This record gives sequence, C-alpha cells and structure tokens, in this order.
Amino acid sequence: MKRPVVILVRPQMGENIGAVARAMSNFGLAELRIVAPRDGWPNEKATEMAAGAAYILEAASIHADLGAAMEGVHRAYATTARPRDMHKRVVEPAGAASEMAASSKAGEICALVYGPERSGLTNEDLSLCDTIVTIPTAPENSSLNIAQSSVIMGYEWYKAAHSSESMADRPEHTIAPKQDWVGLFGQLEGYLDAAGFYKSPDMKPTMWNNLKTTLMRGAWNEQEVRSLRGVLRCLWEGNKG
Amino acid sequence: MKRPVVILVRPQMGENIGAVARAMSNFGLAELRIVAPRDGWPNEKATEMAAGAAYILEAASIHADLGAAMEGVHRAYATTARPRDMHKRVVEPAGAASEMAASSKAGEICALVYGPERSGLTNEDLSLCDTIVTIPTAPENSSLNIAQSSVIMGYEWYKAAHSSESMADRPEHTIAPKQDWVGLFGQLEGYLDAAGFYKSPDMKPTMWNNLKTTLMRGAWNEQEVRSLRGVLRCLWEGNKG
Repeated sequence: MKRPVVILVRPQMGENIGAVARAMSNFGLAELRIVAPRDGWPNEKATEMAAGAAYILEAASIHADLGAAMEGVHRAYATTARPRDMHKRVVEPAGAASEMAASSKAGEICALVYGPERSGLTNEDLSLCDTIVTIPTAPENSSLNIAQSSVIMGYEWYKAAHSSESMADRPEHTIAPKQDWVGLFGQLEGYLDAAGFYKSPDMKPTMWNNLKTTLMRGAWNEQEVRSLRGVLRCLWEGNKG
Repeated sequence: MKRPVVILVRPQMGENIGAVARAMSNFGLAELRIVAPRDGWPNEKATEMAAGAAYILEAASIHADLGAAMEGVHRAYATTARPRDMHKRVVEPAGAASEMAASSKAGEICALVYGPERSGLTNEDLSLCDTIVTIPTAPENSSLNIAQSSVIMGYEWYKAAHSSESMADRPEHTIAPKQDWVGLFGQLEGYLDAAGFYKSPDMKPTMWNNLKTTLMRGAWNEQEVRSLRGVLRCLWEGNKG
C-alpha cells in the first residue's frame, strides 16, 4: 500500500511544521514535502516540536511551488476551513480518508495538502487539488491550525487504512456464571437478615430483588465476584470489636 | 443539551492547556476544569496559546483532586494510550462520542479526562472514570499529547452531537453523579481500613483501585448508590453484637 504524502504549502511557524511531523508519525505517515517554508530549512523549532518524529523532518523534501511538490501524486486533498468560490467537490475528513485508503490500496499516491497558517491555500493552489476536505467545527471558532488539522486527517487516515483490523474485535468481558452470583446473593442475604436490614418483613421481597438487580448490573466476572464476597465478609466480621 | 466538560489532571505545560482550550472552542465545548496545574494559575503561556479561546481559560475552575473536579459529572471518559491492568471498558473516540451525545441529550453531564503529559493518568485517577478512550495510533509512535488528543475527541464529539442518528438513542438510565461515587468509596474505604482488610499496606493501592473499578461498572443511579451505602452501613454496624 502506498501511503499518502503530506504537503505543507508555504508554512510559517517551525513549531507547526514539527507538530505536523509528529502527527504524521502518530498515524503512520512518513513522507513530508514542504513548499517554500517562510523561515528556511532546516528549522530548529520544527525539530524541537517533532518529538519522536525528527526522522520525518530529516527526510522531508523542499520544493519551490506546489506543482513541483505534486510529483507522482495521483489524488490531492486540500484541507481548508473555507470553501472557496470554486467548483470543487467538498468532503468531510472520514470520507476523504476512506477514499484515500481505497486509492492507496490500489497503488495510487494521495497527498494531503495544507496551506500557510494565516492566509490558507490560494485558489491557484486549490486548482491543483482534486478535492477540498472541510473539517466540521463550531461556528463560534472555526479556525483550526495545521497542527490540529493534520492530527484529525492523520487520525481519520489511520482509521480508514486499518478498518478491517478494528479494535472492536477485542475479547468480550466474561461475566461470572450464575452460580457465583447466587453464592454472592446468599451470603449478603444472610448478613442483612441477621443485621435486621429490613424495617418490616414485607419490605424484604421488593427491596431484596431491587438490590440483586442493582448488583447484577455490575456484570462482574468470577474474580470480581470473589473479591466482592471477600469485601462483604470483611465488613461483616471486621467490626466485631 | 448538556455539553461535556473537559478535566485536565495535573497538566504541566501552559501551552498544552491553551491548546486544549482552543480545541474546545473549535468544537463547541466550554467548561474546563483543571486539577492541580503544575505551574499554578492563571498561566500566561496558556493564554497565549489559546488564541480565540481565552474566555474558556478565564472561566476555568481549579480543583485539588480529580474527585473534587468530578462534581456533577455522570459519566467520565479517560483518554489514555495505555490500557492499564484494570477491568475498564475501552472504546474508540467515535464510540465514546456517540455515547456522550446520547447521554448529553438526556441531560447528563459527561467529562473528558486527560492526564499529565509525562506520566498519564494514574490507576487511582482511572478508578473514578467509567470508560477508557483509546485513540488508535501507529505502533511506531503511539504517544499523543493532550493538545492532539483533545482535538480528536473534540472533533468526534462535534460530529456525534450534530448527527441526527446519535441524538435518537438515549442511555437506559441516569448514572449517579461522581460526588455520590466518591461518597460511597469514602465510606467503604473507611470500613475496610478499620477492619484491616489489606494484609499489608502496600497491597492497598492496587486492590482498592481494582475494587473501585469493579463497583463503578455497576453504573448505578443515585437511588442505587444510596441503597448500597445503606447496605454497607448495615453490614458494618449490624454485627456489633
């Protein structure tokens, strides 16, 4: 599978470049291409921010313009909050990610394209991109920086690329067999009866059923039921002094 | 609809606190609670980083411990990369978000809980949380900072809260607010300590955290927690003869 490349167009702050590299590393992306970084290259602040992802910065390639940085790319997804006055298709991150996963599995190279912090991608930049990705945000504050956007896009990419081996397959928690619950209830019932828990005997059936229902909702496994029986015994016997 | 609160437990870097506030603002979250911030409060670096979200920092509340910060919270979701050796349910961000949307719609207050940068949440912190949220990441670099995690959780929350599907389901019942659980745990802890439940003092932290986790899985409502406190009191006092 060809993994998507990330293209930063005229990025301004080194910290943000480093944060993008970090997010790439978190979500299994490796190839970074940078178009005309404002503060030159390499950038110390980028390296500081990248944490364990300095290897991505070291391998990054620098390009004069977006066209040059698009070498070999089949499909380019431009992340921008502001849909321009252009006839481009617009998708949300999850949709873009699942398209990219399919495309990557078919051997294509996709690019995630991010614009400069202040101004965003120009219409000229966007003219080289196939699709605009818009991240849904609250209307009160819709400005995401590239560190934030790249985390979301990386996350969605990783989910889509690994959707078959989902974490939902983890083994279910095994509930204790009913005889263990019966044992727990028998023990507690004995204590409560001996302690005079119920103000009158006719209160018992309803209260006791409710109490068992409450406890059952814990859906405890064998070990947990055993621990709780120890706790009950301790409470019952521990206060004898 | 009650929107989730965000709880930062012992955060270290002001920049990260500011970045969390910014992500909250981007995704329509407003209430920030901070437990024992390392560098005190207010924090200038947090304000610089928050950009348009300084209003969230100004309104943030400061708490001595996670229990105190959980006031009024019904369901707490702990974001951590490392599932501990605890029987907690683990969900992915989208699953957590759709549960939270349903719960919020039903008038419950959910919390998104994040640990300190270096060490993450302790097992004691986790013992007060209902669910662990694990963000899928590449095995090469699975370390996400709180600025990154809060972007992903905010994004998933916003998507879920604005999708018509998730608004339809509602949780089966209302879980007791966290202060009720803190009360229950405090009562039981007192009894077990007095009864010499632990064979040696160093066994206590792990056993007690596991026990709280076991009990939390009951997801009891206020009435049930009250009943169980009555049961504990009865067991403790009832055997004095």
